[in-house]
Amino acid sequence: MLGGACTYISLAASYFADVKIVAVVGEDFLQEDLDLLSGRGIDLAGLEKVPGKTFYWSGVYSADMNDRTTLRTDLNVFADFQPKLPPHYREQPYLMLGNIQPALQRDVRRQMDGPRLVGGDTMNYWINDYRDELVGTIREWDFLLINDSEARLLAGEHVLMRAAEIILGMGPRILVVKRGEHGAVLFWRGGYFSVPGYLLPKVLDPTGAGDCFAGGFIGYLAQQGAGPGEIDPKLLRNAVVYGSVMGSFCCESFGVGRFGTLTRAEIDGRYHEFKTITSF
Amino acid sequence: MLGGACTYISLAASYFADVKIVAVVGEDFLQEDLDLLSGRGIDLAGLEKVPGKTFYWSGVYSADMNDRTTLRTDLNVFADFQPKLPPHYREQPYLMLGNIQPALQRDVRRQMDGPRLVGGDTMNYWINDYRDELVGTIREWDFLLINDSEARLLAGEHVLMRAAEIILGMGPRILVVKRGEHGAVLFWRGGYFSVPGYLLPKVLDPTGAGDCFAGGFIGYLAQQGAGPGEIDPKLLRNAVVYGSVMGSFCCESFGVGRFGTLTRAEIDGRYHEFKTITSF
Repeated sequence: MLGGACTYISLAASYFADVKIVAVVGEDFLQEDLDLLSGRGIDLAGLEKVPGKTFYWSGVYSADMNDRTTLRTDLNVFADFQPKLPPHYREQPYLMLGNIQPALQRDVRRQMDGPRLVGGDTMNYWINDYRDELVGTIREWDFLLINDSEARLLAGEHVLMRAAEIILGMGPRILVVKRGEHGAVLFWRGGYFSVPGYLLPKVLDPTGAGDCFAGGFIGYLAQQGAGPGEIDPKLLRNAVVYGSVMGSFCCESFGVGRFGTLTRAEIDGRYHEFKTITSF
Repeated sequence: MLGGACTYISLAASYFADVKIVAVVGEDFLQEDLDLLSGRGIDLAGLEKVPGKTFYWSGVYSADMNDRTTLRTDLNVFADFQPKLPPHYREQPYLMLGNIQPALQRDVRRQMDGPRLVGGDTMNYWINDYRDELVGTIREWDFLLINDSEARLLAGEHVLMRAAEIILGMGPRILVVKRGEHGAVLFWRGGYFSVPGYLLPKVLDPTGAGDCFAGGFIGYLAQQGAGPGEIDPKLLRNAVVYGSVMGSFCCESFGVGRFGTLTRAEIDGRYHEFKTITSF
């Protein structure tokens, strides 16, 4: 079924802002999947379709949904991907770099005409085997958005509070640490904000939840016109809550299923639920 | 060193209310440990000293402090403990039952003259091997305060939201689920409140943190005169935050060390920090 970081990030962000994607697919990519994306107003000018097959991943989740085992990863057309921004992308103010080789993330960043706000994701593979390249790349970012084990790995420090300080010393002025069912923590120099996880009566499929979080986070900041200077902490806190909201909806259906029916009113409703369940 | 559920619960609660304990120790129990408890105003009339050695536990924590392995458990004088309440304990309004055989918890409950509010803790051993006795005991409680793996075990259901519904159907009208570094969730019929964990720059020793949570929770409710009818949700939410505050202080020193210096002003200060780190 349809998946991938770009898919989830763009679908989630599309509820908040105009989204343009840069990505690559093979000849097997379905028209109905293109229709889902364009139906959400997502600009597909930067989506290359090339000979070969689309990137493929499959895996199995543990009974408690907290661990997953990869069954298969086929890079296919993704192996030779060299992102090229269409001219009308270059002046966009907000850039979210999905999890890909750090050198390519840097290259995309450099194709832009000085965006107001830049951030991205990464993963253990790049942290372990491309550390220097990664550290050189995130130095230019406003925010880094990763999960807690990646934060600990990148910092080389188990205690999250200290790991965050180390990462903020690497360049990004904002660090968002995703903790799956346990919520997320936003760090900036001198403080943090923590939001617990939304409790669902049924988690059907957590695939893409972290990417939906990223989409909600950057989408909300874009909608609010955040940056380029110090961002109002109130905006950042709300962005983390909207990220959590989008991640929670993602888990309610298999794949991207929830985006077939999800409305902005439901999103705002859950944002207010977050207020109710965390206020004292 | 000094430890035990009764020690931690009573020390934490002593910052909020007058505390009277029922417990048993052996002849090896140190005068300086008695002095620490009585120095916090804790009534020791129900503390029996009997021939033999005090209960002893030792263990080792994993590097990330999230798991521990028991090295030794010697029940000693605890094996034959039959709690007997001194007469002036019986009319006390608040009863917190520490983790012990459910039949003994029930017996203590019955020695009281109808307390305003009763609750307690339990553990996997009683859930697995004394289930009927435990279920019969908690049926009479206002609140059950356990950790998340125990909640799932008791309910026989992994999804916390559904596990909570099942447990609330067993009798207690309030369920507090402790999640260690990930905070705590308060459930009542029809809603929940979630507080994230307080991030410490250094966790020296998590031993007793869950018991300190319990002490802060019941202590705050006692100070506010909560119960016996429906408890104001605002009070319950604050009680969970004060529980979290006490648990966080506990981790800052080895054993009960932090209680040598901790002040109520520091406690209230951290309560306000919780507001800062969770508000949006």
